[in-house]
Amino acid sequence: MSKYIFELEMKVRTYECDLQGIVNHANYLHYLEHTRHEFLDTLNISIAELHDKGIDPVIARANLAFKTPLTSGDYYISKLYIKKEGIKYAFHQDIFRKSDNKLVIRAVVESVCIVNGKLAHNSLFDEAFAPFLENHE
Amino acid sequence: MSKYIFELEMKVRTYECDLQGIVNHANYLHYLEHTRHEFLDTLNISIAELHDKGIDPVIARANLAFKTPLTSGDYYISKLYIKKEGIKYAFHQDIFRKSDNKLVIRAVVESVCIVNGKLAHNSLFDEAFAPFLENHE
Amino acid sequence: MSKYIFELEMKVRTYECDLQGIVNHANYLHYLEHTRHEFLDTLNISIAELHDKGIDPVIARANLAFKTPLTSGDYYISKLYIKKEGIKYAFHQDIFRKSDNKLVIRAVVESVCIVNGKLAHNSLFDEAFAPFLENHE
Amino acid sequence: MSKYIFELEMKVRTYECDLQGIVNHANYLHYLEHTRHEFLDTLNISIAELHDKGIDPVIARANLAFKTPLTSGDYYISKLYIKKEGIKYAFHQDIFRKSDNKLVIRAVVESVCIVNGKLAHNSLFDEAFAPFLENHE
Repeated sequence: MSKYIFELEMKVRTYECDLQGIVNHANYLHYLEHTRHEFLDTLNISIAELHDKGIDPVIARANLAFKTPLTSGDYYISKLYIKKEGIKYAFHQDIFRKSDNKLVIRAVVESVCIVNGKLAHNSLFDEAFAPFLENHE
Repeated sequence: MSKYIFELEMKVRTYECDLQGIVNHANYLHYLEHTRHEFLDTLNISIAELHDKGIDPVIARANLAFKTPLTSGDYYISKLYIKKEGIKYAFHQDIFRKSDNKLVIRAVVESVCIVNGKLAHNSLFDEAFAPFLENHE
Repeated sequence: MSKYIFELEMKVRTYECDLQGIVNHANYLHYLEHTRHEFLDTLNISIAELHDKGIDPVIARANLAFKTPLTSGDYYISKLYIKKEGIKYAFHQDIFRKSDNKLVIRAVVESVCIVNGKLAHNSLFDEAFAPFLENHE
Repeated sequence: MSKYIFELEMKVRTYECDLQGIVNHANYLHYLEHTRHEFLDTLNISIAELHDKGIDPVIARANLAFKTPLTSGDYYISKLYIKKEGIKYAFHQDIFRKSDNKLVIRAVVESVCIVNGKLAHNSLFDEAFAPFLENHE
């Protein structure tokens, strides 16, 4: 059984490639962020609405291993699962090239919650993520 | 009958919004470019492959009228039709918000072809676009 | 005497170039925006602070003529002057390549003000821009 | 004595901030990349020229610890030093907010060299970086 709890298919847009002809490495953080937000969307959580309530999930750490570069027009599948580590949520995120299922990037992105400017427990995430955490224990 | 010859549905990604909470206006040029490239893709034309052959379609002019801002999570439909004007191809591109079909941006983007560093007629585009131009005369 | 009231020198960053090896055309909107914001900064106007007060200057139209592409490492000078046209402010913005003073882009960017969600006169801009408008009549 | 061998001052551009009102985390990879390229520029090494010769330095790993978010208009100082680790160069890169010297991000970015599509030793970097490596042994 797959450890992943969410996956999203996307396609590289030409403007995401730089003069080396491959996706500029910074754009993978965009792909990973968009994947997390689409996952949150399935739980009816919106980063924009949270911000309006004074709640801002932010990234505390990101560890990225770049394996295979994507190029213009490539399709890719972005997958994730979550672990809770103290006050942080760790999003384990892997992207695979669709054509041959090769690993493109392996990432762990740790998110913390800022509420009205202070680091805080995020009971909203605790509740929303509970079913997915149990799957991995 | 619609004048549009191609349309593409996309969804706003949160990172495309700036601190005003709406899509940063520069990103619409990205949306429009990606729409053109997806259209070219249906004709088996790839900007990346053309570049490798020394052919670079580039933008000569863009006239943009911003009508309704998109925000995070909005779905939108990006539509286009083409006109030939001398050596230029004019891409007429309109984006509509999916929820209410409101016009988001009306754009005319003029493309010219640089072949080995010089402005040139693009016989590849002439041939590929011919069926779509006839539709509009 | 120069018609320009503000100018800013910048340098192309590699990630702003796409697989054609030149600055992706969407990035010029970023260059132009940053130039306007640096100009506003000299008048002690901050887009971020305005947003917090419910005032959002947004772009209504942009007409862009791309003349000479910039490439990685190029220095460029971004210049502007302003005209008032009814409720709009038109920023006339030209960018020149520093090495040979060649025109890179000629742009007219029209800005309107949204106050608490509605199109409004911007008395702040009226006051701040008054000295610069008089210079051009 | 400082361990850093290069530093660059920059200023946050408004479009680099997202709807949370702070710099989107992906943009720090852009800041770090631009810093490396400006460092290479002092050694007369250009990523664009290397690419034209079939040599592409690419990022293999990045470990990022985000400490203090930057916001629109903030000045920051981006500093780096280098270590060689086998076939990789590890760029140790720290960014500090100028106003109070607070650490913004601590990053280790590992670069490898792709020559004509294959992982390779980069004698160009070996020679160019030698004086800076000796400083740290």
